[in-house]
Amino acid sequence: MRPGKKEIPSLNTVLSPSLLNLYDISDSTVVIIDVLRATSTIAAALYNGAKSVIPVDSVAGCIKLGKQMEVITAGERDGKIAEGLQYGNTPLQYSADFIKGKTLVLTTTNGTKLLHVALAANANAIITGSFCNISSVCDYLVKKKSNVMLACAAWKNRVNIEDTLFAGAVVNRIKQHFDINCDAAMIAESLYLQANGDLLNFMKEKNASHYHRLMNYGLLEDIKFCLTEDNANVLSLYSAGRLIAG
Amino acid sequence: MRPGKKEIPSLNTVLSPSLLNLYDISDSTVVIIDVLRATSTIAAALYNGAKSVIPVDSVAGCIKLGKQMEVITAGERDGKIAEGLQYGNTPLQYSADFIKGKTLVLTTTNGTKLLHVALAANANAIITGSFCNISSVCDYLVKKKSNVMLACAAWKNRVNIEDTLFAGAVVNRIKQHFDINCDAAMIAESLYLQANGDLLNFMKEKNASHYHRLMNYGLLEDIKFCLTEDNANVLSLYSAGRLIAG
Repeated sequence: MRPGKKEIPSLNTVLSPSLLNLYDISDSTVVIIDVLRATSTIAAALYNGAKSVIPVDSVAGCIKLGKQMEVITAGERDGKIAEGLQYGNTPLQYSADFIKGKTLVLTTTNGTKLLHVALAANANAIITGSFCNISSVCDYLVKKKSNVMLACAAWKNRVNIEDTLFAGAVVNRIKQHFDINCDAAMIAESLYLQANGDLLNFMKEKNASHYHRLMNYGLLEDIKFCLTEDNANVLSLYSAGRLIAG
Repeated sequence: MRPGKKEIPSLNTVLSPSLLNLYDISDSTVVIIDVLRATSTIAAALYNGAKSVIPVDSVAGCIKLGKQMEVITAGERDGKIAEGLQYGNTPLQYSADFIKGKTLVLTTTNGTKLLHVALAANANAIITGSFCNISSVCDYLVKKKSNVMLACAAWKNRVNIEDTLFAGAVVNRIKQHFDINCDAAMIAESLYLQANGDLLNFMKEKNASHYHRLMNYGLLEDIKFCLTEDNANVLSLYSAGRLIAG
């Protein structure tokens, strides 16, 4: 804490959902980060006018909701549209002429699990973040002036480069507004600074595991979209089971 | 995996003990990393001729062993020698004229907990690592040619900068001998490269939490010792409840 400036809110970062339970987040805004590709797709859909995005953690749950409501169901497994669903998890698909006014039910694994952990831990507020909406995320956090937890969805709880890069980008933008006593936040910012503005090349150079996974599915354009700042710059706010444009 | 080179062992890194259970380490050598200061103190004691170091997780356990055996008991809580113990956790204390031929029972929290997690997960072999013995660690891992898990003790399971830096230093030295498909290892190496050889200044600049904790106890010389490469360059090998020079 900086002496005499105790009103400054704190900012912490967890690089894996497994580490979120080490913190009291009941007075924090939690930013769910799943850059490749869940929170990028969510940003794209909301930016292009989706009424809301309902995140669910299984294909079965997605199909079930699809039968109950008039919605678009989407999700992938191993780089292909999951059996029983209509669409995939590529942000490029959710253009305005397709998604405007509709509800998207999206099954993701890592991001949705993390969301449930944050809900169970009674997070004060939850938003989702990706490079696609980084300015909206940062503006919201700075204006809100409450404690922040940047929570990386990682991959099956294993730390990943892309979510850490995004956490670092946020730290780099807004650190002067927060009290940061968190090594993980500083590690994330260091990583972001080392990427030196060329995230795609950095991911490639550093042999990022998810970069390779998606490249093997032929999804370079998806990766490029997900690493582009503010190409779907909308606030994605969690409220009563769904994400809505804030 | 690199095609046609399947004989290359793997190297993984966990930035917190909480993440170790995500991996099968039954065929891996686990490197326990607790730079400030447990694994640095262990290296100093063994380098200066201690017969062995017995790590225990509580002050009470340390006192109990001290009553049963002729040993030196040591450990700190909040920067002071813990009540009932003889010595502290400063590596500078364990010079040859003091420690040679003796057994040190050392209570540490983060490092010992991690050791127990690694034992419970049936690690193939366990060594301890710090900058003080980095060359011995790297030489051993390269010669052994088996899978490696670099395991950071962290601080109460929260990721810290100094252990991540050490993991990164090891990755940087030995990566050409291993198949690395692990984002955490690459993040650690990036951090190490960003420190650009001046670890002390980097810790200070990055507001490393444990740097400040120890500085508040007046332990700058300890920190300097712990960030110096090969000033106690001995292999520290776990065997039957104790660490011995390998």
